[in-house]
Amino acid sequence: MPSVVLALMWSLGVAISAQTEPPGGDAKDVRAVLDAQVVAWNKGDIDGFMKGYWKNEKLTFISGGNITQGWDATRERYIKRYQAEGKDKMGTLSFDEVHTESFGTDAAMVRGQFKLVRGEQIDTGRFTLLLRKTPDGWRIVHDHTSVPEKGKK
Amino acid sequence: MPSVVLALMWSLGVAISAQTEPPGGDAKDVRAVLDAQVVAWNKGDIDGFMKGYWKNEKLTFISGGNITQGWDATRERYIKRYQAEGKDKMGTLSFDEVHTESFGTDAAMVRGQFKLVRGEQIDTGRFTLLLRKTPDGWRIVHDHTSVPEKGKK
Repeated sequence: MPSVVLALMWSLGVAISAQTEPPGGDAKDVRAVLDAQVVAWNKGDIDGFMKGYWKNEKLTFISGGNITQGWDATRERYIKRYQAEGKDKMGTLSFDEVHTESFGTDAAMVRGQFKLVRGEQIDTGRFTLLLRKTPDGWRIVHDHTSVPEKGKK
Repeated sequence: MPSVVLALMWSLGVAISAQTEPPGGDAKDVRAVLDAQVVAWNKGDIDGFMKGYWKNEKLTFISGGNITQGWDATRERYIKRYQAEGKDKMGTLSFDEVHTESFGTDAAMVRGQFKLVRGEQIDTGRFTLLLRKTPDGWRIVHDHTSVPEKGKK
């Protein structure tokens, strides 16, 4: 495309919005990874949930300003947080406001909101995920999750 | 490449690590955006700092589980947080552990740690940025920042 058209598309936000929901199967495949995670979580199946993450020491997981490096350490973090005192602590997970943006054929970003209901306790927060298409399918290679600061709106 | 070689590369984490620091000028150009933000911040220049962000209503900024939508709202958030009671509140910003990963020719992810020193107060946290190459150069189109939860290690 002529660069003036590209520039115009950019200035109108068309270039990005057009890629927010790619027409191909990628957005669907990426979303399926997240949906499978929710199903596994709500069965209390941490290892099923962990299948969505790239099983590699280069996986990075950031939450609350801290970085966890590698699939094993990320799994340990989840087990420590949600299974330490019994499976009932995992509760019911759901995702909302999920937006996908893809880059080429093998990378995508997903951002969204999560809600975790455990009895009376309801936690919400937001996540930004980076996924890559691996020989095993789409996998989360980076996760940045944050929750509202206590005492702040 | 034969898919078996690709699969082997993936299993060894080669495909991603090879892209962590792309040999082209992109990583350098992306890093220059961040460096310019630090220089502007440390001059107390919010508008200079904001030049790193995509000037569009589709810019998204997530922090502490909340989402801010659009360049204008993101600028307002910074002004409210750091200039409300005078320019001296902006302090000295620095970035550390900066890692860049690029996707194709027009998208990149950057993650890293920030430190903000304001008098005796030192705040640290981590950021994940998504940048796109626009006609104006590389710009941050999505920012997810988190700080350590109070009272937790």
